[in-house]
Amino acid sequence: MTDPTADLLPIGLEDRLPASARALTRARRAALDAMDAHGYDRVIPPLIEFEKSMATRMSGVATRRMFRFVDPASLRTLALRSDITVQVGRIAATSMAGAPRPLRLCYAGEVAVIASDQLDPARERLQIGAELIGSDSAAAAAEIVVLAIEALSAAGATGISVDFTLPDLVDTLAASALPIAADRIDDVRRELDAKDAGALKAAGGESYLPLLYAAGPFDDAVSRLAEIDAGGALASRIAGLKDIAARVGDKARVTLDPAERHGFQYQSWFGFTLYAEGVRGTLGRGGTYRAGGDEPATGFSLYIDPLVDALGGAPQGDLLFLPLGHDPEVAARLRAIGWRTLQALDAEEDPRRLGCTHVLDAGETRPAWGRVSPFRQA
Amino acid sequence: MTDPTADLLPIGLEDRLPASARALTRARRAALDAMDAHGYDRVIPPLIEFEKSMATRMSGVATRRMFRFVDPASLRTLALRSDITVQVGRIAATSMAGAPRPLRLCYAGEVAVIASDQLDPARERLQIGAELIGSDSAAAAAEIVVLAIEALSAAGATGISVDFTLPDLVDTLAASALPIAADRIDDVRRELDAKDAGALKAAGGESYLPLLYAAGPFDDAVSRLAEIDAGGALASRIAGLKDIAARVGDKARVTLDPAERHGFQYQSWFGFTLYAEGVRGTLGRGGTYRAGGDEPATGFSLYIDPLVDALGGAPQGDLLFLPLGHDPEVAARLRAIGWRTLQALDAEEDPRRLGCTHVLDAGETRPAWGRVSPFRQA
Repeated sequence: MTDPTADLLPIGLEDRLPASARALTRARRAALDAMDAHGYDRVIPPLIEFEKSMATRMSGVATRRMFRFVDPASLRTLALRSDITVQVGRIAATSMAGAPRPLRLCYAGEVAVIASDQLDPARERLQIGAELIGSDSAAAAAEIVVLAIEALSAAGATGISVDFTLPDLVDTLAASALPIAADRIDDVRRELDAKDAGALKAAGGESYLPLLYAAGPFDDAVSRLAEIDAGGALASRIAGLKDIAARVGDKARVTLDPAERHGFQYQSWFGFTLYAEGVRGTLGRGGTYRAGGDEPATGFSLYIDPLVDALGGAPQGDLLFLPLGHDPEVAARLRAIGWRTLQALDAEEDPRRLGCTHVLDAGETRPAWGRVSPFRQA
Repeated sequence: MTDPTADLLPIGLEDRLPASARALTRARRAALDAMDAHGYDRVIPPLIEFEKSMATRMSGVATRRMFRFVDPASLRTLALRSDITVQVGRIAATSMAGAPRPLRLCYAGEVAVIASDQLDPARERLQIGAELIGSDSAAAAAEIVVLAIEALSAAGATGISVDFTLPDLVDTLAASALPIAADRIDDVRRELDAKDAGALKAAGGESYLPLLYAAGPFDDAVSRLAEIDAGGALASRIAGLKDIAARVGDKARVTLDPAERHGFQYQSWFGFTLYAEGVRGTLGRGGTYRAGGDEPATGFSLYIDPLVDALGGAPQGDLLFLPLGHDPEVAARLRAIGWRTLQALDAEEDPRRLGCTHVLDAGETRPAWGRVSPFRQA
């Protein structure tokens, strides 16, 4: 080691050491198991694809944020995936085009971006999610929201809250109850998103002002939204939201921010964001959208790294020291009933220094602390 | 979808669809659990590192085979990992430099190379392995060989065989019992590796000819090797091999090919290759080496994709259809005791078409085949 900088990792990339890796491994498995229990089949797409394939499947994926390189085999540009949803959409539209709908798929894997954003310096994250392909009904959305909560909860989150939104709200209202000139729609949408009442008025969106106040705890907010919706253009959406909220029940706190569009540029009628107590920022997002082959779909993605960091490292639990000359059959039987073992390589090793909590002593397990072990006295 | 080529994956990269993804997930977990049970702590390094860091840690990693790109943040070259061993070596030498030795670490993750080799067209593989850092003794090697066999066996391999080799054999003999001119050592090594008796003689390695016949089932081969070792320069290595073979016992068939160097350019005194019945090619390799901070170390890497492919997809098992209006509490209780459920989104769905084996009917589970379900008759 002559170059100490060779040890450093690039910014936004890091190692998970044992306690943290153990916590992440458990959370990841638990989330996958929760999705599996609800009939979602895991698929495992590759880390790398053609840039074009990643880019055309869903307009939400900005290829300039991906790690890209020329493939010497095809001379085409490849990209390291930044989002697994796009890959699952591709699978649903191609290899699994003939599978019955609705198709329930889930995934877990690393994604990376070349440039991090200001809120989150990480350039690599674990993405875990589920996609229900073939339906974007309120029933599908309710299933997906409840599943996202269960998966997050299985991964260790508590005090979960879900914020609902209606991503195409302005388009819907502009075409009916609250008409605005086509060339002002983008402005109105932007100022609503920025929650800037003055700028919203200036942009010609005065009639949209009440939407700024139709946000907060679900029951109140959805009532205010219904009041705004004089023409009933939102009636089916409001009914859908109520249906979903009812299905969530007391599994999470539900809020509504109907005009929130940040992060939902590619969702259709429904979107949601997940939060948990003690974790800064969002833990995941989901909603209804059009998947790969233009099928209606509903899904979510979780990014559990901040949750795992907030929960802290997982304890290693008991570790049983196997001294030199131990009976390997006894050791195998002890592992079979759940003991984690560590075997001596030489006679000088100190079980406690190696982190062992117990030692195998004449075929019996006993705590490593306390009196000096008889086999060490020999 | 206007461009059908957008659906194709680059050569050497592929999706795992449900049955295959399920099989891989189980095999991966089982291998990780086997290593964990033996006191190996998992670490999770990032997908991407500085090229220089990957290259300098172990001379075995050819950076020209890696996917590389310039980091806009540091303006340095980054590389997508092609080998996790190097990363574990870095962790052991830096963040975990102060952890007690021997340090037992394990890992599982995807690795990728830009160009595949002729024998294996895959450009992305799952690498699973363990490293015992701080020792390269025969006891350490025995622990690692046995652990590799157990991990492979947990992943579903049967009829496992292990081929031992002595990577620095020629150097050792050239310096003692079978002297050869320094400028001929490389030639002798190459022809031994090629198992070409004529070329070996021509290269001045006539005295090495018997090594070509000291290969095969372990007991016979090691006896022949001992006969060649007139000066006793290999005595400690031969004793080590016997020790390791004894510890393997009947867990695997053991063979010896002492002059085999292919794939072991960076190992020190001991190397091994793993095979399993019904799977073409090697499933993994391991041996003794020098880790990151020049510490003695022993480890192995498994590449289980071909094993999973040979075993075929895993069955999905039972799947319980939950009709509209089912009691979610009952469903949750059934999941808690192991049922995998799939809930109806509308009243028209056919449980069998969706792959369900059972249906929940008036709070009871019953097979989905046979008579038409009463709730479908309604």
